[in-house]
Amino acid sequence: MNGLMQNRPLLISSLIDFVERHNSDVEIVSRRVEGDIHRYTWAACARRARRVANALDDHQLPPSARVATLAWNGYRHLELYYGVSGSGRVLHTINPRLHPDQIAWIANHAEDQVLCFDLSFLPVVQAIWSKCTSVHHWVALCEADSLPSETGIPNLMSYEAWIAERSETYDWPTFDENTASSLCYTSGTTGHPKGALYSHRSTVLHAYGSVLPDMMGLSSRDVVLPVVPMFHVNAWGIPYSAALVGCKLVLPGPALDGKSVYGLIEAEKVSFAAGVPTVWQMLLGHMRTGALTFSTLRRTVVGGAACPPGMLREFEQKHDVRVLHGWGMTEMSPLGTVCSLKSKHDGWPADAQLRVLEKQGRAVYGVEMKIVGTEGNDMPWDGRSAGDLLVRGPWVAKSYFKGEDGDPLVDGWFPTGDVATIDPDGYLQITDRSKDVIKSGGEWISTIEIENIAMAHSSVAMAACIGVKHPKWDERPIVVVVRRPGAEVTKDELLEFYKNKTVARWQIPDDVVFVDAIPLGATGKMLKSRLREQLNDYRLVDAAI
Amino acid sequence: MNGLMQNRPLLISSLIDFVERHNSDVEIVSRRVEGDIHRYTWAACARRARRVANALDDHQLPPSARVATLAWNGYRHLELYYGVSGSGRVLHTINPRLHPDQIAWIANHAEDQVLCFDLSFLPVVQAIWSKCTSVHHWVALCEADSLPSETGIPNLMSYEAWIAERSETYDWPTFDENTASSLCYTSGTTGHPKGALYSHRSTVLHAYGSVLPDMMGLSSRDVVLPVVPMFHVNAWGIPYSAALVGCKLVLPGPALDGKSVYGLIEAEKVSFAAGVPTVWQMLLGHMRTGALTFSTLRRTVVGGAACPPGMLREFEQKHDVRVLHGWGMTEMSPLGTVCSLKSKHDGWPADAQLRVLEKQGRAVYGVEMKIVGTEGNDMPWDGRSAGDLLVRGPWVAKSYFKGEDGDPLVDGWFPTGDVATIDPDGYLQITDRSKDVIKSGGEWISTIEIENIAMAHSSVAMAACIGVKHPKWDERPIVVVVRRPGAEVTKDELLEFYKNKTVARWQIPDDVVFVDAIPLGATGKMLKSRLREQLNDYRLVDAAI
Repeated sequence: MNGLMQNRPLLISSLIDFVERHNSDVEIVSRRVEGDIHRYTWAACARRARRVANALDDHQLPPSARVATLAWNGYRHLELYYGVSGSGRVLHTINPRLHPDQIAWIANHAEDQVLCFDLSFLPVVQAIWSKCTSVHHWVALCEADSLPSETGIPNLMSYEAWIAERSETYDWPTFDENTASSLCYTSGTTGHPKGALYSHRSTVLHAYGSVLPDMMGLSSRDVVLPVVPMFHVNAWGIPYSAALVGCKLVLPGPALDGKSVYGLIEAEKVSFAAGVPTVWQMLLGHMRTGALTFSTLRRTVVGGAACPPGMLREFEQKHDVRVLHGWGMTEMSPLGTVCSLKSKHDGWPADAQLRVLEKQGRAVYGVEMKIVGTEGNDMPWDGRSAGDLLVRGPWVAKSYFKGEDGDPLVDGWFPTGDVATIDPDGYLQITDRSKDVIKSGGEWISTIEIENIAMAHSSVAMAACIGVKHPKWDERPIVVVVRRPGAEVTKDELLEFYKNKTVARWQIPDDVVFVDAIPLGATGKMLKSRLREQLNDYRLVDAAI
Repeated sequence: MNGLMQNRPLLISSLIDFVERHNSDVEIVSRRVEGDIHRYTWAACARRARRVANALDDHQLPPSARVATLAWNGYRHLELYYGVSGSGRVLHTINPRLHPDQIAWIANHAEDQVLCFDLSFLPVVQAIWSKCTSVHHWVALCEADSLPSETGIPNLMSYEAWIAERSETYDWPTFDENTASSLCYTSGTTGHPKGALYSHRSTVLHAYGSVLPDMMGLSSRDVVLPVVPMFHVNAWGIPYSAALVGCKLVLPGPALDGKSVYGLIEAEKVSFAAGVPTVWQMLLGHMRTGALTFSTLRRTVVGGAACPPGMLREFEQKHDVRVLHGWGMTEMSPLGTVCSLKSKHDGWPADAQLRVLEKQGRAVYGVEMKIVGTEGNDMPWDGRSAGDLLVRGPWVAKSYFKGEDGDPLVDGWFPTGDVATIDPDGYLQITDRSKDVIKSGGEWISTIEIENIAMAHSSVAMAACIGVKHPKWDERPIVVVVRRPGAEVTKDELLEFYKNKTVARWQIPDDVVFVDAIPLGATGKMLKSRLREQLNDYRLVDAAI
């Protein structure tokens, strides 16, 4: 017997309708590619999103047609989020940091019909347009009079001209909430990228879950800065969750350097910011130089990669900014866990609290997780036993676009590729990527733990731990280090630094390799596979321990 | 084209699973009918809920069979919430304050097969059991050795004996999230009660919505006291939302007097409490007498009836407790709106902020609302135009159990029976029940506004405004008043008190009628229809204005 509640589907269009009615005068502030600041309201955003929908209707774009973006975080990108998905098409956000060949490959695989791009990516589009056979409309996210002539790109028009002639009135269609809403390809380190295809249902449920008080805790009173890009897993869902709560949104455009981000935080009174550690390194570096402080920033979600403990302490203790360490992945929309303290931690010494906050945190209701051993057996939640992490839930992928890679699920669970422990309080700690884990003498060594210790050294800017072949132990860890500008540290000093830390003696790296840079992927993560290739000729000098 | 996210249904069982894994050691504290305090953890609750499910399986109760409760807020009731709904049956919470004949009528209409009751309701059950033809198992919520002998009730057993012999292991079944989960009859003032039949989907979505930071804002760090009964719209969903966030839960049992509630708040360090104004009157009255203060209480949701402005001020200004004025109804699971301030209200004078907080607040995302005029035309959101309030959303009823009353919807919208204004910021203010509204000289008078002014007078304990016939103006308002114990106030003093308040001169009542008590319904609301009957012989002495 079914309940007798209304059959209202969970649709993305209801988010923009909601914020327009309840928070019409709340601001959206964007730093544009042009460098200036643009400001308007959620009501204006909603009106322009409806113009986008009318434009797509006028092009007779069928339901579920893909509309791609190559764009920074900005108000026009936000309008596309709602206009495209709300009208029943699929928003396909492409990472512009990928190689142009890969962008063309993705656009073809997705069969994108419209591609909207910031003018900063004009050279990319000029390089690829002829290869993108399905795209029949190219839209430059700019004013009509800013559109360069003679680009060579056919059917190119400016976004402002494109929407100017359309009506502000539009009845958002009602359809099955499982309908596809948006598409994001994972930047796989091997093989072709694979597309995670989100639905309206998964997007709305994820928005509910992500703003819970123990998670991002967003309210209408917040001023939210997603530094994490809107081309990367929908900026962790913030374009949706911000509408759900009706908060002010600050979109940083392409200016992600420390000075620009700091200036925006202060000028717009940002209370909450979200980003990856590499961006926060730039921000904190800028603040150190000028001995700057935050006037309004209270909380920051750090995700995409483990938050180095030193960064956590700098935010928490120096700046009184609460770090919400998070974990997730493209296939999870992306939110899995956020770290916040429980009441039981009240009164703990600051250092013990910080050690809790270094973990990736507790699962949001909506994500189930488990860790399993090599036989697929459930591992205990004791905070020590590490296992392969599997997840399931209504915003977790069941497969990839067009069935690439077949059925990835294991008994209905999605294998994350991460190795983790979970403690009795439900706090997850990622100890490694399963492909990065080092097996030395039959025991696992957590490369993240080795890296975190190195990163805590005042002379280290970045550190990557990788395994190298060893005749006796099979593999041994070494740490690859980028020094801070002007800082000096020797191999022996750094190895000495590992003593009396949280690693056993046999887990201390055998060597330190100093490099100028560690290769980063398109989403800012260290590419350890690339690093292993670069160090292919490296041999341990002293192979005896 | 559908998205490629997992098809995980939203089920109530996932809430108890979730809290057991992530907050296993968090306490649930109950004041029992026996008078003592019981405490255990969410993990113990989950284990016992699985025993309940096994008991129902052992009785071969089919899916969707109704299991009724006549019970106060307590841990056994909570276990039934999860054991009954989680196993696919329907939890039917009956309001024990109804007349026994009405309870029997409801149990028969619902075709309840099992009925679980607190021993305080033994006399009720003894009076009705022979009329409840579908019930084949009667369960007293007590220890085996507390079960009275010779009750005359067939197949009566104690809850503890009933679950003791069952296994703690149980695999919650997976089924369509639209499956019915629970049933609650509205205590209609006319005609028979009608059943609102909730689904797993509506319950889980409501739980997400209700804990948002702008709504109840519940986190794992809260200690939550639902004084609102679990037999009344699922205690506003708190048994579910508390599991979703993993907070400590304090269940007050039958002791709702001011002293008991205050004692529980202080002893258990309650941070958040939810209840109707009549219960808070008792609490505040007790605190005034003893000049008491709160040590830990920070927020309270007040709903079920309009929060009198005087009560709001006493909580906010005297006790530094933030009042979250809410509005909803049984057919809405129940949450519709909660009042919290926006950033734009920061820096407003305290009195202006309080006037915002007197409104019922903004809709939660998930509830759409509109106000319409007599022709069904949309009324503007200007804070002045009043209209009939309609709502829709995935946790709003589309019809009643067994189709009673036919199709209540108007173009897909549920008519609430309330008259309201909505301001440009989306704040709802209920001005009346449509059946209570007074039409004087063609103009509407808000009886709630008239009542709020009277209640602000220091000598007034309760006030009800009703319309009486008038030869010239059709209807005129009078106010029926219960004085505070020992307080004195005359008709002329009270009418004088209306001057320079928020009502126009022609809206001031024509008369004051002092009474010893105003009739209250089973959920603590004033029964104005009954009051109108009682005052059927009343005539205005001076029918000229």
